[in-house]
Amino acid sequence: MSDNPSEMMQRFAAASQGGTAFMSGLGAQVIAFAPGRNTMRLPYAPHIVGNPDTGVVHGGVITGLLDQACGMAVGTALAAARQDGEPMRGIATLDLRIDYLRAAKPHADITVVGECVKITRQIVFARGRAFQDESEEPIALATGTFMITEIRMG
Amino acid sequence: MSDNPSEMMQRFAAASQGGTAFMSGLGAQVIAFAPGRNTMRLPYAPHIVGNPDTGVVHGGVITGLLDQACGMAVGTALAAARQDGEPMRGIATLDLRIDYLRAAKPHADITVVGECVKITRQIVFARGRAFQDESEEPIALATGTFMITEIRMG
Amino acid sequence: MSDNPSEMMQRFAAASQGGTAFMSGLGAQVIAFAPGRNTMRLPYAPHIVGNPDTGVVHGGVITGLLDQACGMAVGTALAAARQDGEPMRGIATLDLRIDYLRAAKPHADITVVGECVKITRQIVFARGRAFQDESEEPIALATGTFMITEIRMG
Amino acid sequence: MSDNPSEMMQRFAAASQGGTAFMSGLGAQVIAFAPGRNTMRLPYAPHIVGNPDTGVVHGGVITGLLDQACGMAVGTALAAARQDGEPMRGIATLDLRIDYLRAAKPHADITVVGECVKITRQIVFARGRAFQDESEEPIALATGTFMITEIRMG
Repeated sequence: MSDNPSEMMQRFAAASQGGTAFMSGLGAQVIAFAPGRNTMRLPYAPHIVGNPDTGVVHGGVITGLLDQACGMAVGTALAAARQDGEPMRGIATLDLRIDYLRAAKPHADITVVGECVKITRQIVFARGRAFQDESEEPIALATGTFMITEIRMG
Repeated sequence: MSDNPSEMMQRFAAASQGGTAFMSGLGAQVIAFAPGRNTMRLPYAPHIVGNPDTGVVHGGVITGLLDQACGMAVGTALAAARQDGEPMRGIATLDLRIDYLRAAKPHADITVVGECVKITRQIVFARGRAFQDESEEPIALATGTFMITEIRMG
Repeated sequence: MSDNPSEMMQRFAAASQGGTAFMSGLGAQVIAFAPGRNTMRLPYAPHIVGNPDTGVVHGGVITGLLDQACGMAVGTALAAARQDGEPMRGIATLDLRIDYLRAAKPHADITVVGECVKITRQIVFARGRAFQDESEEPIALATGTFMITEIRMG
Repeated sequence: MSDNPSEMMQRFAAASQGGTAFMSGLGAQVIAFAPGRNTMRLPYAPHIVGNPDTGVVHGGVITGLLDQACGMAVGTALAAARQDGEPMRGIATLDLRIDYLRAAKPHADITVVGECVKITRQIVFARGRAFQDESEEPIALATGTFMITEIRMG
């Protein structure tokens, strides 16, 4: 793997996105990323609807995206901080809390942002938010704790 | 809708399962339910894999199932407690915490159980656990708070 | 109780602070409040130390303050929104998550801010953070869900 | 420090209890402990009351006890598993979630139990519950994630 951080992050994002059959099955795309920060978009589509009467997206989809966005924010932070010759490190989600502030509107895309709040040698605290039109009115917030492991990622 | 509690619960479970395109897309099935308790099984399949190198199921899938199982446990508890003539009530997840205790083994089904811990007039506290072979060694635990709403479910 | 919102909030803050024997026993003071937002300061003192070898404040103290600050942020938001003639409403903490990002430094005061993130008719989501010198480097973050009840507060 | 596990755990419990000025200030006592499990009792007293009108104990007190009981369960598990010559390890709370199921009754003691659910090399997942007369009807539940550190405890 290249030691160029920017290329590495692009590969990391591509690998995480492409490799995750579940996420690509949802149709979610990474639209922006930087070390410690990640933005994904999920186009509205029938196969992610939880309630066919209302057209509201299934809560589990939003939760899955928030988990993924937070995990990728941790991954890009680690990739950017990695020194030449250091082994790649893996990430395990220890726990995740989601607060569901309001129902998602049907027929509207969902944007999810994950960010690192605090990075220590072994533990990373991350936060995420999911919103539709206005980022100031999130539909869900995430708070997660991740462990950095010595297991190689890929 | 019938006022027969048992029939009502079966309909409830069927509606929740069948109506949830996302969950049926995963291939999860309700294998047992009773008022305030729900058991689902997710057969192992390629489309739910998060890491193609290891074959490990995507964490977001387990989270989504735990959310669903807890929500259905709340739903069956409400359906069983409902008196003749009372309106059906809806359920909104307020928040959910997942603890990921160990990685799921690849090539093994996942069972998820949701249970109500405490039911008040407006709020229900539920717990869930996901496991593979042995229920004593969960792969993930869930703790969630749900609100009972006056919005009709279907 | 007065219907003047500003006086009401002052009384509310005073009652919550003065009436809470536990909190005043810690020596915490409300230093600023506005509808939906509350700031408290806890002067460093020997009786709040958790580890006498290091002088680090007990984690339970910080947790208690975060709970209190979030609850008071909810209380001032409700007081400000209350119409003439409406009954006062009570607040119950449904659940609270604390993330402990770094150890508190000994011999330094702790500031705790609570804020409402989303207010609905029955539920309020609040966030809190505890910090010492720099608010950009929190020692702990809180995420809580509160229920608005019809029980009078005082 | 003695290498006798039982004596070590007693010392550990004594040190944790006696050394914690905050907890002893509350009047809480350890009434039973074993590796990975800890039971504390908090006698009812005026100085722990949060609402003087109702006499209900301050929620922050219960949260602090649950944190302490879970942390001590982790500590006794580590002490029991420690081999001759190994350094003592420290414990840091990463995060803690409390669910407040019902209000504590005034004028009744509170019992708090902490237990380890899963112990890995670096991380321990613990659960706690607080109850009064009947352990089957908890007033609060705790779910916490703890990190094992290399810092000596005492």
